Amino acid sequence: MGGNSIGEPTTDRFADDPAFAVHEGGKLSVTSTRAIETIADLALTYTPGVARVSSAIAAEPELARRFTWAPRVVAVVSDGTAVLGLGDIGPTASLPVMEGKACLFTEFAGLSAVPVVLSTTDVDTIVETVAAIAPSFGGINLEDISAPRCFEIEARLRERLDIPVMHDDQHGTAIVVLAALRNAAKVVGRPIGDLRVVVAGAGAAGVACTKILLEAGVGDIAVADSKGVLHAGRADLTPIKQWLVENTNRAGYAGTMVGALEGADVYLGLSGGSVPEAAIASMAPGCIVFSLANPTPEVDPEMAAKYAAVVATGRSDLANQINNVLAFPGIFRGAIDAGARAITEDMKLAAAAAIADVVGDEVRADYIVPSPLDRRVAEAVAAAVASCAREQGITR
Amino acid sequence: MGGNSIGEPTTDRFADDPAFAVHEGGKLSVTSTRAIETIADLALTYTPGVARVSSAIAAEPELARRFTWAPRVVAVVSDGTAVLGLGDIGPTASLPVMEGKACLFTEFAGLSAVPVVLSTTDVDTIVETVAAIAPSFGGINLEDISAPRCFEIEARLRERLDIPVMHDDQHGTAIVVLAALRNAAKVVGRPIGDLRVVVAGAGAAGVACTKILLEAGVGDIAVADSKGVLHAGRADLTPIKQWLVENTNRAGYAGTMVGALEGADVYLGLSGGSVPEAAIASMAPGCIVFSLANPTPEVDPEMAAKYAAVVATGRSDLANQINNVLAFPGIFRGAIDAGARAITEDMKLAAAAAIADVVGDEVRADYIVPSPLDRRVAEAVAAAVASCAREQGITR
Repeated sequence: MGGNSIGEPTTDRFADDPAFAVHEGGKLSVTSTRAIETIADLALTYTPGVARVSSAIAAEPELARRFTWAPRVVAVVSDGTAVLGLGDIGPTASLPVMEGKACLFTEFAGLSAVPVVLSTTDVDTIVETVAAIAPSFGGINLEDISAPRCFEIEARLRERLDIPVMHDDQHGTAIVVLAALRNAAKVVGRPIGDLRVVVAGAGAAGVACTKILLEAGVGDIAVADSKGVLHAGRADLTPIKQWLVENTNRAGYAGTMVGALEGADVYLGLSGGSVPEAAIASMAPGCIVFSLANPTPEVDPEMAAKYAAVVATGRSDLANQINNVLAFPGIFRGAIDAGARAITEDMKLAAAAAIADVVGDEVRADYIVPSPLDRRVAEAVAAAVASCAREQGITR
Repeated sequence: MGGNSIGEPTTDRFADDPAFAVHEGGKLSVTSTRAIETIADLALTYTPGVARVSSAIAAEPELARRFTWAPRVVAVVSDGTAVLGLGDIGPTASLPVMEGKACLFTEFAGLSAVPVVLSTTDVDTIVETVAAIAPSFGGINLEDISAPRCFEIEARLRERLDIPVMHDDQHGTAIVVLAALRNAAKVVGRPIGDLRVVVAGAGAAGVACTKILLEAGVGDIAVADSKGVLHAGRADLTPIKQWLVENTNRAGYAGTMVGALEGADVYLGLSGGSVPEAAIASMAPGCIVFSLANPTPEVDPEMAAKYAAVVATGRSDLANQINNVLAFPGIFRGAIDAGARAITEDMKLAAAAAIADVVGDEVRADYIVPSPLDRRVAEAVAAAVASCAREQGITR
């Protein structure tokens, strides 16, 4: 007979997928860093001893940086409206993603992180809520909030708070893309400023990638949304798309994304969907294809390899994985280490350079970014970001 | 010569107080319960594996109880307006206290807990903020929020949320006081219903203690605030004090707290200040004195012992310490274990009975409550609270 232990469920419909086993009971735990074994421990960790520490901070608020955990805790904040490729699944269903993000903060940056998922999607309420809880944290990582709301929420919180605030779907992606493009340009022997880039997607990631590529000196970028390339003749543009029109597409091209690819040097796919082979074939010789939709890239990587000198995707089973984990742990760690009051554009550029530099001279077509597990990355990014913050004089 | 290591500060003005050493860097840490060592780990803990878990929860929200950490996380929420005896010191200075509370949740109940301190003291904003972040947590422990705002905030959040919400300064104290009074009554051989009680203090703890003593069957209670005993002739009563007038002070006594002590069986001090020896001497023979102001009890414990059969304080260096840690870890643990949608009055009474029962037959004048370090307490309270919740049919 033998068999199952008593009390073990005889069938579990989740038993076949190891992802569920990994999530059983959640993926995070808060623990006390101080043992409480004696009355004396209790009297120091809690009352009456704690009152002396609270009094000291009341008199001198900056002591909170030394005597509380808050400066080293990142809130991972989401309203669950744009979760991975799943869309608007709501706060509760988004929790495993936010927990996963928090795990990566602890694992790669040694920071504590707490998922904060919100029962509201109203921009004003989100801003007020995050501002209200901000004294509890040392940084705010906004996550999986749909565009264009994410732009306003991030901008208003950056304005309102004097701790680092970053919407990772925008800037984490942008920083890693810039790092990858720097190294891809090295592989093909071109200065980054000479490249003609087509960005497919004008959502959170598309906007942030375009901005950071402009800051890094890429002069010619065409950005396409689902209706084609953004140009001055388009009606119904949101404020952010209007900004893109004014700062991209020098030639005033008014056609489709596929049309724009003819002769282009770089395809940056952030939109999902699928790109026909003929479009990739029409790109310039030695072109670069970053196709980041996950799990199914817009451009089949094997097909891309027939035409492109460098191919990158978001997939963990292929070379050149563009993964935000290369950026966000080190960025927050560096900003927090330096006591930075914000994450500036220069700090993001410094992070991208640091990621690219970890690859260094070993750069080749199938190694333009470090592995997401490369522990050197967060350390290098943190050092570069902290140093940049100090140079900019935005630290406490 | 010898001396300090290189880099060690030559003087540290906090070096003489071990409470500061205990608080260095804060007292909490969030860790990942899953190792992330391989690409396969990353693909299960985060993308793409996590998407399958999120999708399952989106389709069936109750799966969040199994596959996320949130149901086992308590938010320790404060606006810093009534912190210990320090008063309104603000959210940042209150952080060490909230961290300490979170440490006790982890140590005594095996729950995760996260301090959430708020940059607002507005009742509406606090309610909206806590409601907005509620999907992130399995319970809300309100802490150190000043009266009378604490009553409205707790009532509105209990109404609004379907997870356990408890203001510990009210109910944690009340539950432990009831447990202690049950055992003190045993020591003096009196039924609890026969005792005439004077409650000094009509703030958060005074109100909650009065309510739970009424629920437990104590018939005659006089409640005093700084202006004397509450009675129908008093002007300017807040709604909660009006409620107290209608439910206490049978005799309609209109004098001072000290006057009310004449012939009383129980003094319950929750107000600070100091009570003259003559007032304690005027109490009934075999009286009970609970003097809970911390660190300085309202009644000197040595003096009280000259007149009272049982004396209890909030101090850890004396017998009979009335400490909330006997209640809140087990209450939240039991409510969460049972999947309770609220913490009801019956669950609080069950908790008080469980605390008293841990002392059991060993009860004596200097042992009416268990030690705050007695690990049996949280377990017994959790079992009693969970069982009560299930009997009441308020579980998921």
